[in-house]
Amino acid sequence: MLPQEIIRKRRDGEPLARQELEFFFQEFMEGNVSDEQMTALLMASFYAPPTMDEALALTDIFIRSGSRIDLSAIPGVKVDKHSTGGVGDKTSLLLVPIAAAAGVRVPMISGRALGHTGGTLDKLESIPGFNVHPPPSAIVRQLSEIGMVMAGQSADIVPLDRRIYALRDVTSTVEILPFIAASIMSKKIAGGADALVLDIKAGRGAFMRERVQAEELALLLAGVGRHFDLPTVGIITNMDEPLGYAIGNWLEVVEVVDCLQGRETPDLMEVTYALAGLMIHLGRKAQTVSEGIAVARDVVRRGLAFEKFLELVHAQGGDPSYIQETLRYRNAEAAVEVVALCSGVLHGVDARALGLLAVELGAGRKQPTDEIDPTAGIVLAKKIGEHVEEDEVLCRLYSSAAHDLVHFRERVREAFSIGDREIPRADKIFSYFDSDTIVPWSPESRAP
Amino acid sequence: MLPQEIIRKRRDGEPLARQELEFFFQEFMEGNVSDEQMTALLMASFYAPPTMDEALALTDIFIRSGSRIDLSAIPGVKVDKHSTGGVGDKTSLLLVPIAAAAGVRVPMISGRALGHTGGTLDKLESIPGFNVHPPPSAIVRQLSEIGMVMAGQSADIVPLDRRIYALRDVTSTVEILPFIAASIMSKKIAGGADALVLDIKAGRGAFMRERVQAEELALLLAGVGRHFDLPTVGIITNMDEPLGYAIGNWLEVVEVVDCLQGRETPDLMEVTYALAGLMIHLGRKAQTVSEGIAVARDVVRRGLAFEKFLELVHAQGGDPSYIQETLRYRNAEAAVEVVALCSGVLHGVDARALGLLAVELGAGRKQPTDEIDPTAGIVLAKKIGEHVEEDEVLCRLYSSAAHDLVHFRERVREAFSIGDREIPRADKIFSYFDSDTIVPWSPESRAP
Repeated sequence: MLPQEIIRKRRDGEPLARQELEFFFQEFMEGNVSDEQMTALLMASFYAPPTMDEALALTDIFIRSGSRIDLSAIPGVKVDKHSTGGVGDKTSLLLVPIAAAAGVRVPMISGRALGHTGGTLDKLESIPGFNVHPPPSAIVRQLSEIGMVMAGQSADIVPLDRRIYALRDVTSTVEILPFIAASIMSKKIAGGADALVLDIKAGRGAFMRERVQAEELALLLAGVGRHFDLPTVGIITNMDEPLGYAIGNWLEVVEVVDCLQGRETPDLMEVTYALAGLMIHLGRKAQTVSEGIAVARDVVRRGLAFEKFLELVHAQGGDPSYIQETLRYRNAEAAVEVVALCSGVLHGVDARALGLLAVELGAGRKQPTDEIDPTAGIVLAKKIGEHVEEDEVLCRLYSSAAHDLVHFRERVREAFSIGDREIPRADKIFSYFDSDTIVPWSPESRAP
Repeated sequence: MLPQEIIRKRRDGEPLARQELEFFFQEFMEGNVSDEQMTALLMASFYAPPTMDEALALTDIFIRSGSRIDLSAIPGVKVDKHSTGGVGDKTSLLLVPIAAAAGVRVPMISGRALGHTGGTLDKLESIPGFNVHPPPSAIVRQLSEIGMVMAGQSADIVPLDRRIYALRDVTSTVEILPFIAASIMSKKIAGGADALVLDIKAGRGAFMRERVQAEELALLLAGVGRHFDLPTVGIITNMDEPLGYAIGNWLEVVEVVDCLQGRETPDLMEVTYALAGLMIHLGRKAQTVSEGIAVARDVVRRGLAFEKFLELVHAQGGDPSYIQETLRYRNAEAAVEVVALCSGVLHGVDARALGLLAVELGAGRKQPTDEIDPTAGIVLAKKIGEHVEEDEVLCRLYSSAAHDLVHFRERVREAFSIGDREIPRADKIFSYFDSDTIVPWSPESRAP
């Protein structure tokens, strides 16, 4: 078999046999298929129809490329969560302490910023001292002791995905369903969780712009989960505008702290409570999803989730004093306000455009080796549907890099569209799904 | 501008502005766009509709990436030739001495093996001592003194293409019309020729399998030529079966010597004489194309072309004694015969399959750094339409690598299909084209 012949077959829409995929990835691991050849296969796969067979084959190849974590010694149902990535999506930082406060064990494996979206690990690393790569023994101990851990994929878990993830990010080959499915599910399966909750984003700020695409992915993921004995449920959520107010690593941590202390961002907490309800239900700490949601609200209201967050930061080497007093943190060197040029109703806030602009400000990476500026980003002052007056602030930009923020302001303003009529509130959560079904979301949605 | 955003736009079928293409290639030259990102753009371009605008923009970017050769001090019309590449296509080695023997000056710039097809430079290098990279001053002097030179692209001519060519070869991104057009035409324009003759291959052994695709490329190439003041004409030829008998570097040199000494392979010489006729006509050494063809036949018949070939080999450091006595050359270490399993008429000889098998035998490269075995390859004993008897030899395989040639034989045999009826002779040359027109080929075809 020649690698370029396998690429050509994929390019020309011919089916690839499982052993051709296995050969190609095996040779890639051994250095005989180059990064360029892998990229060519990835881009050609963008145009090929996604199939469950390919998702299962890739997931299997991915899992077998490394070792698996065994958490069976720890009692209880271990529940992990994954989001397909959005702009301003900091729900993971909220869910881990909320679910843990409810008694669910959460071994969460997270990733880096990808494309125009942020990454949980980058957000955590903005907390001074926070270690996202504790050794495996520490992960097991921490999960046992405080019921939660937030870590990056360790080098020996799905090493293949690690290399391919870096390639996909910079080559615009992220949005390929079977690869997304294999990337997500292989890590979750190898990570040792007993159940998984998914947040599949749909909209202009998501990798899946169309709901139908998001639904296709949802069924692929839940189907792979079932095949590998990992019960998987989730929701499809709206990512047309950024989630919450903050975009950028430390800025998002501050918003998380605000929410855990009772200053709740409505759209962000609506999505967070739905996911938390699913996790608490799957973790057998509530009889139904709606009861799980009630438990989640309760642990936030009583401050237990905030206490858990401090405990998490402390356990992973972070300095909790920055969480207790976020103003202690150094500010970005430059900040400017973007104001509205006219009065009206905010009709659109382009999440994708703001995500890309935040990357340019320093909140993300253009190349895998780029350093992230933890203080950089954008904080919205208005959300879709709100009234704005001429000269009223739409958002604030923060950066420490040598940017011409005044010039930048014009590009940011273009992401906001103002109309003259009231608009109906858009749904934040579209659907609930598991491996059998997709139904419109309600807190009464069934979970296995 | 972010490279991955430019890739995404191309991937999603959005038009790319000229300055986006310029930015992307400029950053590639400076090392800020990686090989993987270039590959992603290439593969996504495979699915984008080809346009003349893009071909012109790319050609311009390619030319400006390096310097240009000035041949204006040399009198006469300098005519170059290019083939889009086929299996067994050794016409360049025939055309240079034939056209030069007719008095046309031929500054030919050639390439390496690409995918399943051979490369003129690799064939020339199989001649002991032959230097395909003479310094620019030697190229001009040789062209002046003996009227011909065969050289690889020098490092300072279109350096951008050099890098991209290597990528395309191993990533199955060769067949992208605007890139093919830019790659071919930028080198020819920067190479300093006054006119250009093209051989566009169509069929299962060509990069363009369909004639309609080959015609689209033909008009793109001739249009780019006109835009950059390089008169460009050509023919579209049949590449369903290999051209001539030999596939593999030294094996093809031997077939060239045979043809120049009067043992002519019919299909190979039909194509060669048509191209030579165009070159001799464009070079103003014949009033018409058919007169050019007659001149070409004459210089071969009288042995003048063979003399010219010896002169060329000598001028570029090669040892002419191997050309005068090809049996002096060391043989491949292993050779086996592939015989027919039944009697009948040869209906098909799959050029693409044999090209790929020849690469595996050592005649081409799987990776850019692979070494070529000059003695490796396949020599056909039969051509399509000929009768074969059971146990009669179809072809012979040669290799010095540690291959199980007996096992290999089975895969080679599958490239031959035998039927029980006579079949009509297929056209070898389909069409003549220039920047204005494509018409069915005849030796009376008009050339500007």
